[in-house]
Amino acid sequence: MPNRICELLDIDHPIIQGGMTWVSDASLAAAVSNGGGLGIIGAGAMPADVLREEIGKARTLTDRPYGVNLIMITPNLDEQLEVVVRERPPVVSLGAIQSTSVIPVLKEAGIKVVPVVAAVSMARRCQQQGADAIVAEGAEAGGHIGETTTMVLTPLVARAVEVPVVAAGGIVDGASLVAAFVLGAEGVQMGTRFVCATECTVHEAVKEKFVKSGDRATVVTARSIGYPVRSLKNKLAKLYDEWEKKFIASECTAMEVENLGLGKLREAMREGNVRDGSMMAGQCVALVENVQPAAEIIAGIIAEAEQVAGELPARLVLRR
Amino acid sequence: MPNRICELLDIDHPIIQGGMTWVSDASLAAAVSNGGGLGIIGAGAMPADVLREEIGKARTLTDRPYGVNLIMITPNLDEQLEVVVRERPPVVSLGAIQSTSVIPVLKEAGIKVVPVVAAVSMARRCQQQGADAIVAEGAEAGGHIGETTTMVLTPLVARAVEVPVVAAGGIVDGASLVAAFVLGAEGVQMGTRFVCATECTVHEAVKEKFVKSGDRATVVTARSIGYPVRSLKNKLAKLYDEWEKKFIASECTAMEVENLGLGKLREAMREGNVRDGSMMAGQCVALVENVQPAAEIIAGIIAEAEQVAGELPARLVLRR
Repeated sequence: MPNRICELLDIDHPIIQGGMTWVSDASLAAAVSNGGGLGIIGAGAMPADVLREEIGKARTLTDRPYGVNLIMITPNLDEQLEVVVRERPPVVSLGAIQSTSVIPVLKEAGIKVVPVVAAVSMARRCQQQGADAIVAEGAEAGGHIGETTTMVLTPLVARAVEVPVVAAGGIVDGASLVAAFVLGAEGVQMGTRFVCATECTVHEAVKEKFVKSGDRATVVTARSIGYPVRSLKNKLAKLYDEWEKKFIASECTAMEVENLGLGKLREAMREGNVRDGSMMAGQCVALVENVQPAAEIIAGIIAEAEQVAGELPARLVLRR
Repeated sequence: MPNRICELLDIDHPIIQGGMTWVSDASLAAAVSNGGGLGIIGAGAMPADVLREEIGKARTLTDRPYGVNLIMITPNLDEQLEVVVRERPPVVSLGAIQSTSVIPVLKEAGIKVVPVVAAVSMARRCQQQGADAIVAEGAEAGGHIGETTTMVLTPLVARAVEVPVVAAGGIVDGASLVAAFVLGAEGVQMGTRFVCATECTVHEAVKEKFVKSGDRATVVTARSIGYPVRSLKNKLAKLYDEWEKKFIASECTAMEVENLGLGKLREAMREGNVRDGSMMAGQCVALVENVQPAAEIIAGIIAEAEQVAGELPARLVLRR
């Protein structure tokens, strides 16, 4: 049996690089695609013309399929959609989905649509609207997250839909890839690990922070205002905590809490202000140990996964 | 190679039933042990004489090894410890660990000690104090929890200690057991699934709730006062939310929030008040589908795990 994610996306290995705002530009996306995975440009709040340029760059950097990630709550989503429908990247992934109405629009343009969901009900809705695959993202992931973890969400979504499921959240190496497949996934999406790809253009200070982080490095902020986000603990995260307490005590508005993040992702990821900026990262940042070219990351994970699977019969001793 | 957890605990299958206050009495513990796993009496805040009786009952119900779970923040811990050191159950598991000083005391009494931890640093400290194995419990688990999920915590703890690691949190069936082993565990601990064991003496209304629960059924309360607890959403959980908001706004004390839970676990688990009582449950409650004898649960999971592992080579297609 062929792998349905590889077939669907026309890629060599079922590894997708998660779309990351201010992180995954054409450089990273193309490197991942050239490595046999699916690289994804994180559109974030990119102005339409910048997004068009990035798509153009990706095309010059790779002749392999690539994708664009759109965040459904972005103010300039309509302009971004226009660009995407015109430029027709092979794949579009969707984040922060509230309405699924964009799926048929993209499908009609001949684009493969891969929504990122955090709950079973949304997975079903996306499939109904024509999604080609579902990325089930566990709460250990970085950035905007849900509540259910990869260990539980993956099998639930895999049972709920017929299209192939891609596990995200906590996927970082060969072992976690195999675990995801065991749980019902046919592919994986990784964000955090690819932040430490050589071709990723984030500030070196961010990569350094990622490599050094341990198991208690991340924290979820903005849960109180309904938009939980996982990022590395730093001064900004503490500031969120203070302001969220004020919000809960009705001493400030949700907007004031939200505004704490304005420009902060850029400040960390591009300018290297790891203290006051926002470094979205998944819990598996604790397992990221070095900076490597994207193709090496992918090849390494595939080799590791095959080794882990090969050793399983000897390790899985379930009877005395 | 033999399984180190089976060897250490003298059990047939590397499946431990998590200690659950007001849930896992001698009846459930003995049924699990008779089924080839390790059943554990959840001491909770049991008075010393009740704990002694439960240990006695377990001994009459099974001739297999069993354990007692002690919660390190229980007010009458000293009396419970006295009973345990005198009665010498084969295994003691420890929850809500703040100090590890109890480990050498138990070891000296000839008891195997298996602490439940939520962070790498605590796993290391427990090993230093002589722990025989470490249960690494992910944040998807029920009851008192940490922040790191099973997918990330398992490999981190497995790398940090030499003693065998038991994965907990989100483990509910053969697939999740295999995933845990892939991630580095040599055994699993399950709580939620065993609540729906026939021999579990909780109120039938609780088992019904568990079987019907979906992927968004649980919620974490009391995070604001520093003791996050995962349980099923109900009226009590909403009450927590209200009072925690008051606490954050300095309109009530942490003690007032804590007191909301007084007697509530008993009210749900024993009396069946699923609306106002506390039903601690892991996220994997969504994957619990029926009530079965403990031995059937164990045998089913082992068979399923072997099937999942056998199918893996065909499913793990990583190259086009």
